[in-house]
Amino acid sequence: MSPLAIIAGGGDFPPALARILRQAGRPIYVAALDGAADPASFPPEDLDIYRLGQLGRLLKALRSRGVVDLVLIGSLPRPSFGGIVPEASTLKYLPHFARAFQGGDDHLLRGVVRFFEEQGFQVLGPAEIAPGLTAPEGPLGRLSASAETRALIGRGFALLEAISPFDVGQAAILADHRVVAIEAAEGTDATLRRVAELVGKGRLKIARGDGVLVKAPKRGQDLRVDMPAIGPETLRLASEAGLAGIAVRAGQVLVGERAGLAALADRHGLFVEGIA
Amino acid sequence: MSPLAIIAGGGDFPPALARILRQAGRPIYVAALDGAADPASFPPEDLDIYRLGQLGRLLKALRSRGVVDLVLIGSLPRPSFGGIVPEASTLKYLPHFARAFQGGDDHLLRGVVRFFEEQGFQVLGPAEIAPGLTAPEGPLGRLSASAETRALIGRGFALLEAISPFDVGQAAILADHRVVAIEAAEGTDATLRRVAELVGKGRLKIARGDGVLVKAPKRGQDLRVDMPAIGPETLRLASEAGLAGIAVRAGQVLVGERAGLAALADRHGLFVEGIA
Repeated sequence: MSPLAIIAGGGDFPPALARILRQAGRPIYVAALDGAADPASFPPEDLDIYRLGQLGRLLKALRSRGVVDLVLIGSLPRPSFGGIVPEASTLKYLPHFARAFQGGDDHLLRGVVRFFEEQGFQVLGPAEIAPGLTAPEGPLGRLSASAETRALIGRGFALLEAISPFDVGQAAILADHRVVAIEAAEGTDATLRRVAELVGKGRLKIARGDGVLVKAPKRGQDLRVDMPAIGPETLRLASEAGLAGIAVRAGQVLVGERAGLAALADRHGLFVEGIA
Repeated sequence: MSPLAIIAGGGDFPPALARILRQAGRPIYVAALDGAADPASFPPEDLDIYRLGQLGRLLKALRSRGVVDLVLIGSLPRPSFGGIVPEASTLKYLPHFARAFQGGDDHLLRGVVRFFEEQGFQVLGPAEIAPGLTAPEGPLGRLSASAETRALIGRGFALLEAISPFDVGQAAILADHRVVAIEAAEGTDATLRRVAELVGKGRLKIARGDGVLVKAPKRGQDLRVDMPAIGPETLRLASEAGLAGIAVRAGQVLVGERAGLAALADRHGLFVEGIA
């Protein structure tokens, strides 16, 4: 069986995926991206470290191992095109990537996927390989949303659906019977911090048991390479903002190792719930 | 002719309205709300200062002058119901206002309007009395939006329309071909500051001539007492965020004295445009 290649950025998801595949007995090859992935966080593996400019070296390594399937996972500080120093064997691919860098983030990701596909690889999503890394349907930990909060969650998902055609809005926060924050370019963490500040300044009151972060993919988002995610920091900030919990689209939002996040949710007194 | 009563909160709009009515020869009575309105900013008038708890005194003053029409205008720090010390003649109205305080801001405003209507007054909107205080159709100052920005503006208004059923989103900011911020509970100024921060941190690039704040009423918003507004601070923050300009729904957004804001827009190098 040819190894599955994990092209790994930062965060907990890439090592979590590696551990799951290892337990399943699937051979893997980890291409850890320098400055993003932490090589020490992976179980002992066939692993190499790559700078962003070393595409030629990466392709050669993948081919020499007979890799067909690969997964791109983890966070990556968005590189500036000028900041990448390509090695000689990468130069011929540059025009392709120069085009990908012209558009927004989605455009860039689509370009990267297209590139690997054109090179004969199959790009898989983490959810296809390891569904256990995504939010299951129902509560993740001990707590679950109240009936009142459930109505708020429904409204939140409908809002995300309504703004999805504008290519915006992976997340929103609802509390006090209304929408209090909508995420755009600032990201989920900043959106949670904003709500914590409004509460801190007394401009917003969130009663105990009220308040929810809803998160879902945008319509047309390529879940293979751009799946929304929540993690320990999301939980910490949700707790700081005084929310009762987090609701995500089941199977469509990465949560990493479920048991770990469930324990953390319990510790914060938050519900984390996957909604079908 | 019975005087028109201006129940005046803070900001430039109440005195601007008073000056316009004065020039038109309409007699007025100003009820300046203590801690919000600046009595000195009004032209010499029949003016009294009221604390929020002095509703009985206000009704008496209005009736003794034969007031029928009144307008509620200006900003008001949202009072906590407990913080209002009612005088004896106000106590009988309290149950009415306790109900109004239960809901959101919209609910509160509707309650206040209903109260004055039940007392036999006619609540008018600033735009009915002085259309010159709202954004006209077309550019306010010397600059106008480019064709490219105009497409972005269209997208922005469509977004505001799409989220309006969720009772949110008076404003959004679009730049770099996408939606970069959507206003919810934080208000327009904070939304502009957020974009300025994203730009400052290098997380967002706004090219010269790109970037626009769009602002419009929500569907069902009572424009008599809750009209969206832009002012000098909005312009300053839009300029700080590096935007090219501001687009508002013509006739539905307060701008105050047009000439003053036009001059300020020119000074900041911003377009301010009313869109039909």
